[in-house]
Amino acid sequence: MTRRLAGELPVSVYDIAADRRAALAAEGARDAASPAEAARDADVVVLAVRDQAQVEDALFGENGAARALRPGAVVILTSTVGPEAARTTALRLAERGVLTVDAPVRGGPVRAGEGDLLIVVGAEEVALKTARPVLDLLASTLTVVGPRPGDGQAMKAVNQLLAGVHIAAAAEAIALARGLGLDPATVVDSLKHGAAGSFMFADRGPRMVQTYDDGPGPEVKSRLDIFVKDMGIVTGIAKDAHVPVPLAAAAEQLYLLGERAGLGARDDSSVVTVLSPQSREGEGR
Amino acid sequence: MTRRLAGELPVSVYDIAADRRAALAAEGARDAASPAEAARDADVVVLAVRDQAQVEDALFGENGAARALRPGAVVILTSTVGPEAARTTALRLAERGVLTVDAPVRGGPVRAGEGDLLIVVGAEEVALKTARPVLDLLASTLTVVGPRPGDGQAMKAVNQLLAGVHIAAAAEAIALARGLGLDPATVVDSLKHGAAGSFMFADRGPRMVQTYDDGPGPEVKSRLDIFVKDMGIVTGIAKDAHVPVPLAAAAEQLYLLGERAGLGARDDSSVVTVLSPQSREGEGR
Repeated sequence: MTRRLAGELPVSVYDIAADRRAALAAEGARDAASPAEAARDADVVVLAVRDQAQVEDALFGENGAARALRPGAVVILTSTVGPEAARTTALRLAERGVLTVDAPVRGGPVRAGEGDLLIVVGAEEVALKTARPVLDLLASTLTVVGPRPGDGQAMKAVNQLLAGVHIAAAAEAIALARGLGLDPATVVDSLKHGAAGSFMFADRGPRMVQTYDDGPGPEVKSRLDIFVKDMGIVTGIAKDAHVPVPLAAAAEQLYLLGERAGLGARDDSSVVTVLSPQSREGEGR
Repeated sequence: MTRRLAGELPVSVYDIAADRRAALAAEGARDAASPAEAARDADVVVLAVRDQAQVEDALFGENGAARALRPGAVVILTSTVGPEAARTTALRLAERGVLTVDAPVRGGPVRAGEGDLLIVVGAEEVALKTARPVLDLLASTLTVVGPRPGDGQAMKAVNQLLAGVHIAAAAEAIALARGLGLDPATVVDSLKHGAAGSFMFADRGPRMVQTYDDGPGPEVKSRLDIFVKDMGIVTGIAKDAHVPVPLAAAAEQLYLLGERAGLGARDDSSVVTVLSPQSREGEGR
C-alpha cells in the first residue's frame, strides 16, 4: 500500500518491524517512530494490521495514532476484524471527532502495490469523501455496501465464508478422488468449468495436486492461519446473529486441524493433507 | 433421452408409468410392456432410473431386461448409484456375457432431449465401442475416466460433493447476509465473480434470493431430495474409503433437514429456508 501511495501523496509510515520501515522509507515514505508520529497532521490514516488486538494497540495503545489525530481526520480500517470490532473502533474514534471508513481489503501485497485491491466499504458520506483519494489509488474495485462502519466487514465475512468453505470443499473433493483411485489432476481439469466449479477449486485445486508431487510444494500465496482467524470471525458473528452455518463451522475446524498439524504458515491449499496425508500410509484401504 | 434417440435409431421404450410410455411412443419409440420386452434383440440398453433399487428391479426383477439380453449386448447405466453399486451390477451382467458402460449423466431432461448431456464414463474399450453411437447422440461432453465400471460413478460422486457443498455454502452465505442486515441480492451480485464465486452461487444464489420475494418462489429445476440421495452416496463411499469429508457430511444433514421440513420435491435452492426462514420471526435478533 505504501509503495502505491508514496508516489502520489505525502506518506508517513510506521511498521513494528524496523527493517520494513527502512524498506518503506526507500519507497519515498517518511519513516515515523510510532503510530502517533506517523498520524500527526494526517488527513487520512490507513491501518493495515492482522487483527483487532493490533488495531487497538495501533490506535489506542501507548503512542497510538488516535491521540495524534485532529477532529475530522479519517481512519481507514483495511483489516478483517468483524462488524462488531469495526463498530467499537468507530465509536471510540468518534469520541475524539475522528471518522472511520470500514474498508476490509482482498487481494494481497502484490495487488496492493499495483492499486488492484478489491475493497468493500461501510462508511458515512463525509468520511468517504475525505478517504476517496486514498481508496481510489488502492482499489481497482470499490463497493460501498452501506453507511455504517461494520457493513464492509459484514460483506467481507460473507465473502470469507464462501472462500473458506470452497477451499475446504476442494480439499474434500481431491482427498475423495485420491481415496477412490482417480487421478486428482484429471478430476480438477474435468470438473473446474462445470456445475461443480468454483474460483477456489480452479485456483487452489492445482496447488493441492502439487502438494502430492515430489518437490517443494506450492509457494505460500495465502497463509492457512488467515482462515483460522477469518472463519473464527464468520462463525462468531453468525452465532451472534443466530444464523446456523454448519459448513463454515466444519471448515473452521479443518483449518484449526491444519494449524495444529503445523501448517499455519503454509499455503492454505495444504489443508488437503489433513484429509489425505502425503504419505501413502494414511490413505485408507 | 428417448426424444433424442428415437429420431436416429430404432428405440423400444419401457417406463413404469403407462402415460409416459404413450408419450414416448408418440416420439417414435416402440412401446414395450416390460423391461424384458424393451431389451429383446437390443444391442444397447439405456437404463435411466432413480436409484440402485430401481436398477436391480429393471435389470434383474420379474420381467427384467437382463434375461432378454444376448451375450455382447451393452447396458449403459446413466443413473447416479455410486461406484460399488455400478461394479456389482457389472459383475452380475457379466455372468450373462452382458457388458456394462458406467455413464452417470448430468444436465437434466431438457438437455437430454437436445443431446447436450455431460457424461463421465467408466467402461472397457469393447463395451464403449458398442455404446458409442448412443452416447454420442446423448452427450455434448463425454469424458472417459477409466476402464472400470464404477470409475464414472466415482467422478460423478466427486462432482456431486462439490455441487452439494457449494449449494449449501451459498445458502449459508445468503442466510448470514440476511442475519447481518445486508441485502442478499447485492451480496450475490458483488461476490459471484470474485474469489468467493462458484457456479452454484451464481446459479442458485438468485433463486435463493427469489425465495424471500413475494410470489410463487423459484420453479423446480432440480429437486432437493436428489441431493439427499447423492450426498448420501458421497458420504457413504468416502467412509468406505476412510476419507473424512466433514463439509459434505454437514451438507448431507442440511438436505435431510430440508426434506424433513417438507422441501423434498421443491427446488434444491429452497434449502436456504432451513437456515433463514421466510417469515421474519425466525430471523434472530
